[in-house]
Amino acid sequence: MVERIEGGITAPIGFKAAGVKCGIKPANRDLALVVASTPAQAAGIFTTNLAEAAPVVVTRDHLKRSGGIATAIVTNSGCANACTGQQGLVSARTMATDTATLIGCPEEQVLVASTGVIGTQLNADKLRKGITIAARDLNTEGHAAAAEAIMTTDLKPKISAARVVTQAGSFHVGGMAKGSGMIEPNMATMLGFLTTDAGVESSLLHRAVADAAETTFNAITVDGETSTNDMVLMLAGGHSGVQIEDSEYSLFVEAVHAVCHELAQAIVKDGEGATKLVAVTVTGANTQHEAKHAARAIANSPLVKTAVHGGDPNWGRIVAVAGRSGVGFDLTHARVHIGDVELFSDEQIFDEREPEAAQHLGGNEVAISIDLGMGGSGVATVWTCDLSAEYVRINGDYRT
Amino acid sequence: MVERIEGGITAPIGFKAAGVKCGIKPANRDLALVVASTPAQAAGIFTTNLAEAAPVVVTRDHLKRSGGIATAIVTNSGCANACTGQQGLVSARTMATDTATLIGCPEEQVLVASTGVIGTQLNADKLRKGITIAARDLNTEGHAAAAEAIMTTDLKPKISAARVVTQAGSFHVGGMAKGSGMIEPNMATMLGFLTTDAGVESSLLHRAVADAAETTFNAITVDGETSTNDMVLMLAGGHSGVQIEDSEYSLFVEAVHAVCHELAQAIVKDGEGATKLVAVTVTGANTQHEAKHAARAIANSPLVKTAVHGGDPNWGRIVAVAGRSGVGFDLTHARVHIGDVELFSDEQIFDEREPEAAQHLGGNEVAISIDLGMGGSGVATVWTCDLSAEYVRINGDYRT
Repeated sequence: MVERIEGGITAPIGFKAAGVKCGIKPANRDLALVVASTPAQAAGIFTTNLAEAAPVVVTRDHLKRSGGIATAIVTNSGCANACTGQQGLVSARTMATDTATLIGCPEEQVLVASTGVIGTQLNADKLRKGITIAARDLNTEGHAAAAEAIMTTDLKPKISAARVVTQAGSFHVGGMAKGSGMIEPNMATMLGFLTTDAGVESSLLHRAVADAAETTFNAITVDGETSTNDMVLMLAGGHSGVQIEDSEYSLFVEAVHAVCHELAQAIVKDGEGATKLVAVTVTGANTQHEAKHAARAIANSPLVKTAVHGGDPNWGRIVAVAGRSGVGFDLTHARVHIGDVELFSDEQIFDEREPEAAQHLGGNEVAISIDLGMGGSGVATVWTCDLSAEYVRINGDYRT
Repeated sequence: MVERIEGGITAPIGFKAAGVKCGIKPANRDLALVVASTPAQAAGIFTTNLAEAAPVVVTRDHLKRSGGIATAIVTNSGCANACTGQQGLVSARTMATDTATLIGCPEEQVLVASTGVIGTQLNADKLRKGITIAARDLNTEGHAAAAEAIMTTDLKPKISAARVVTQAGSFHVGGMAKGSGMIEPNMATMLGFLTTDAGVESSLLHRAVADAAETTFNAITVDGETSTNDMVLMLAGGHSGVQIEDSEYSLFVEAVHAVCHELAQAIVKDGEGATKLVAVTVTGANTQHEAKHAARAIANSPLVKTAVHGGDPNWGRIVAVAGRSGVGFDLTHARVHIGDVELFSDEQIFDEREPEAAQHLGGNEVAISIDLGMGGSGVATVWTCDLSAEYVRINGDYRT
């Protein structure tokens, strides 16, 4: 049984965290450190952006060199260390070696992440001081400060934790994330960090993170922008005494999914300028891949997002985006719902129901669904937020 | 030699036009009629949206049945006749037969187009009265009224004309277009209508329209939305006495391109909420297709469009979109210019030049270019506008 609990990345036994100010951002916490009491099994998934940032390159390399073992994750906000060339790679490696020296582990057991402005270099001195303070501050209640330290344009820190009771005992999954659109105002970097005190071998852990992300972190969008720095990392320390093998996999992934889902939803709700959480569900697609592709097109459509913002049950826009999305679509059998209200079905138009649909759109949580009319079993849901004038204001201001 | 002249769709010899009020829109002209004095060679290109509207289905069918001959184009604004099922097809065919009866030609020689709200039915009585008035009003100076009658959220009518002097004599190309984002506020329908008094056989005419559209109408974007009703139609009447064969093709397509280019640029400048015309050029791509794909991704990025709106020379956003666009990209050899100012090249950052780039962004016409660093010969330019809070306002209001 998976049960939500209070707390975040330090909820599992055997993890400490800290979030401190190192001076990259003018006033706020900007350095987070998460440390496992003993070397943990580790897994990561990374941005598909070809302009991948230095910390993405270094962390991928460290996971490979360590054979999927990690002891710490060190993250800064305020500077993405992206488009920074050789110097950027040196800076990312220095973050790892500085951390490794302080906590006493091999450098390849330190994973690094960054988020913030693209195209500026990290300040190694500030980072070193920050890492030193953070290493002193590490504690089992450090989840809140750490979650705060990875924020950029986020309005709220994002934490989640769950407890799972099994016949073999109980274990925990904890997490934190950041992301709300563009950052300072630059990039939609999405970072997620997860811990567990279950014992999970690295390759099974990777499978769990990838499976859980598919319908959580990889099923949200604020503005269709994939960052240069996106990453989700998970550490499994094993200190609960519960070992996850193939037979316990489904329960374990359910717990990871629960935490990822809460974090992903928090990111969309905190989307730049967002006033509503919008769930876009596509059914009747040829394949699941086509369903997700169409759902993503609708969720990223400025046409749909402004209509939702304005409370306009403009189902024609949803049909039009589905039609241009590039996947199989049959207008003669398509159906559109806003909330529970069917507005279009088999070429019939139900104008008289629009007031009821408009009422649904007036709420904070909105559901849109379209059946593509292909009669296939492809189904997918993507979460997004509405598009407001505030989004334009946040991202149109000069960076300074 | 191609020379721009005053006028629009009635500039070529042998075409009359009218634009009248038929009552679909509360106050403005909403019905346009263009008629050739004798049956003309005709060609059309159509939306790729699978939810194609009834007029798209009927016009495609008429061009096929007539063997590429047309005498009239009849267009209404205020109602897209899209998602309207069998009744919508009957309405579109009725527009054609009513027009054919009045001007005395076979129904398949009448091409129909619509733009406006999706999901409402046309009023056949209003249309019939409008077509009757328009047929009486037809005149060789009717280009302005016709261009006005196809507007929806457009702020300005869009017309263009050119004269070409050849050894065999001179001929003309005229055109009108509409489009500015979403319509009433519903769909980004782009309609373009072109005439010429050169004699051009239907299949060669089709090639010219498709070739000219590739770098004009198909190289613009306001919000990434392909409408259910998009179409570009061209009629060639031959009354100049100049016949276009393969040897004159390049001169002819140059003239068609000139008119399409002017109309396409006018559409982007009139984009909903637009304050700037933005040319996005991609070079160094593996192929032309990849160059256009990346240019389109950058031109549709809310991240880039809001930065341009805010006058922020945020080159990191341009790199990040190129990196996620799905085409070949090499960060180590990429280069970014804003105006003439190089801001990033071979992993070097030129922060000191940002004020100069910001000055360029302050103007009404903005140029952005990125070399993808692949060393290929793929080059493409896509035109777009900036993203303003006004766009959100226009599209967030309820349709009524």
